[in-house]
Amino acid sequence: VAVGLNPPAQLLPVVGVRLAATAAAIRYQGRLDVALIELAPGSRIAAQFTRNAFRAAPVVIARRHLAARASRYLLINAGNANAGTGVNGIEDCLAACTALAAKTGCQPDEVLPFSTGVIGERLPVDRLVRALPAALSELAPDAWLRAAEAIMTTDTVVKDASRVVTIADQRVSITGIAKGAGMTRPDMATMLAFIATDARVPQAMLDAALRIAVDASFNCITVDGDTSTNDACVLIATGHSGVDIDTDAARAQFQSSLNETANELAQAIVRDGEGASKFITVVVTGAATVDEARRVAFTVAHSPLVKTAFFASDPNWGRILAAVGRADVEDLAIEGVEIFLDDVCVARSGAVAQEYTEAAGRRVMGQSEIVVGVDMHRGACSFRVWTSDLSYEYVRINAEYRS
Amino acid sequence: VAVGLNPPAQLLPVVGVRLAATAAAIRYQGRLDVALIELAPGSRIAAQFTRNAFRAAPVVIARRHLAARASRYLLINAGNANAGTGVNGIEDCLAACTALAAKTGCQPDEVLPFSTGVIGERLPVDRLVRALPAALSELAPDAWLRAAEAIMTTDTVVKDASRVVTIADQRVSITGIAKGAGMTRPDMATMLAFIATDARVPQAMLDAALRIAVDASFNCITVDGDTSTNDACVLIATGHSGVDIDTDAARAQFQSSLNETANELAQAIVRDGEGASKFITVVVTGAATVDEARRVAFTVAHSPLVKTAFFASDPNWGRILAAVGRADVEDLAIEGVEIFLDDVCVARSGAVAQEYTEAAGRRVMGQSEIVVGVDMHRGACSFRVWTSDLSYEYVRINAEYRS
Repeated sequence: VAVGLNPPAQLLPVVGVRLAATAAAIRYQGRLDVALIELAPGSRIAAQFTRNAFRAAPVVIARRHLAARASRYLLINAGNANAGTGVNGIEDCLAACTALAAKTGCQPDEVLPFSTGVIGERLPVDRLVRALPAALSELAPDAWLRAAEAIMTTDTVVKDASRVVTIADQRVSITGIAKGAGMTRPDMATMLAFIATDARVPQAMLDAALRIAVDASFNCITVDGDTSTNDACVLIATGHSGVDIDTDAARAQFQSSLNETANELAQAIVRDGEGASKFITVVVTGAATVDEARRVAFTVAHSPLVKTAFFASDPNWGRILAAVGRADVEDLAIEGVEIFLDDVCVARSGAVAQEYTEAAGRRVMGQSEIVVGVDMHRGACSFRVWTSDLSYEYVRINAEYRS
Repeated sequence: VAVGLNPPAQLLPVVGVRLAATAAAIRYQGRLDVALIELAPGSRIAAQFTRNAFRAAPVVIARRHLAARASRYLLINAGNANAGTGVNGIEDCLAACTALAAKTGCQPDEVLPFSTGVIGERLPVDRLVRALPAALSELAPDAWLRAAEAIMTTDTVVKDASRVVTIADQRVSITGIAKGAGMTRPDMATMLAFIATDARVPQAMLDAALRIAVDASFNCITVDGDTSTNDACVLIATGHSGVDIDTDAARAQFQSSLNETANELAQAIVRDGEGASKFITVVVTGAATVDEARRVAFTVAHSPLVKTAFFASDPNWGRILAAVGRADVEDLAIEGVEIFLDDVCVARSGAVAQEYTEAAGRRVMGQSEIVVGVDMHRGACSFRVWTSDLSYEYVRINAEYRS
């Protein structure tokens, strides 16, 4: 069902990272639902968390632990978000970290917790803790795919990306996994992404690299405009390849590969979006400012009218033009805006383009992947958003989820 | 199908206003689709138009004519929005005004044109003009309901409101009609509302009264967040009752009745919203600023996750709290926010309320009319939005409309 997604790739091990996945019956029976990631001493971590003011307990604790000291373990569960659980949720989360610390000899604040699943229910800490010995005994460098499976909730496919980068004739690996099938639904919260490299990256550079990669990927996708209480994206650099990212050229190469990895994971979330039957790229060009381009792109991408038109394969350029018109762009003369579906110009001068034919529009709209181009002809700035269509299936998933 | 709407009321004539409706086959066959409203000389008009930068030809022309001189006729057609029609659309619109002027002896700029219907197709001016003699011959003071029928597009019910106000022991009438079933779908554009009174109101007061009424009614509703290319709300004061609105008390009384009329029409649009099965009032209180309250109310009202939960009668307070959390409120401590479904407190201190029971939540969610209360406990400002749920039917209507 996911739009244009390939089967899982070969996921390269990252020297210094071991993973395990196990079934703890947090909510689901008979499937992997706990992932454990162990980091070699000296690993550096950067992380970005949800901007939603309603933060789940694990987000509160992970931020606190990250600020306290270098992390040794990431403990992730699916099936329960531990969000909307108040003070109890914080205590449950800390109990899980403490239990893992006791079993491994590290400190509780060397554990970063992550949760995804239903909101408003207590985390079954006992079941989570009982699963830890099995997870610890199975830690292995090649368990990325099993970990990707364990963090799924209503995802229909695993999300993964992996590549080798040659930097100054030396090879480093970048491997990542993600989950998320809406951006996102707060009761089956969340977008989570974990990316690791064995390159050696200074902390400030690692923080900046993640911010850049996330801004151009996970922050440019939308399924339904809802951000979650648990969203997190983590970037780990173990340094165990011995390859230093210490020149401008190396940094550029590393950033480029990291961006590609993040883009692949972010696209996978949209391609597996709730009820998605189309993968839509909205590209706004010719804007006076990036902020203006961003606003137009998201207004088009969020419009239920535009999204249902894509679901119906209807080349309804009027809906796109109307979305551009209400994006609150100062002094916008709509006559200057051109709208494209792939290479077909559909609207110009506030009306249908002279050369446009309904047949050409229908041809593009029949595709499973479509680029909507909005050329504003008033500047040199641009922005790109990936999104999906709005289908019956989206309503069904979100209306029937709790029953 | 419309939620909680009564059959059309008795619509009181407004002295100085005559109306007619006729079938011109603009798009539909065998139904009224042209309305004509004639105003007595000396009538004053206030109007508010769409804020969408993508404005239909009749919006451009109506604004121009309104600025030029006092209007004598409003000419409204359904079935074709004359939007996205470029220079041709302007010419078509002017041709219709000129034809009506020739037949009545007024000037073309004494005619205000309004259109609603499909975007991007030429207005069939010939058919519109051919219908004018019949319309002119049928002008009558009691044709409000027929006019309300003529301006419908995919509305399932007529929208009307009428009341008598006693001001300083004298009676004045306020009668209004509206159309719209989304807020709105730009290809079957539009929200249109025409309200008239026989009170005598100074122009500046009339303008201010309309602005106040619209801000508290039509600007507080949303079905899908899409504003249209043709939205217009017109307020006419003929003065033919001889009753002057010239004291503070009279003004307050007039404003209050005008607000009620506008609210009734605005609510009717939401109650007849595309695919609506629930009428939802979102009330945000305790906000630090009105703008903050407004942002929170609309974020909740626009959230597809919240709207599908209402469709499913699921008391999913996590989705509401998460929408509040992402409304971009500065320094929001989510622990301070209380969420109510009618009188049932569902969330407090970032978790489910202690006294809450799923049974109590389900009882409220099973109703066809629900008030969502969000008390932010950080100030004295508030805002209220009316909206509907998100159903399969919404997707069907908007996906299948053009086929």
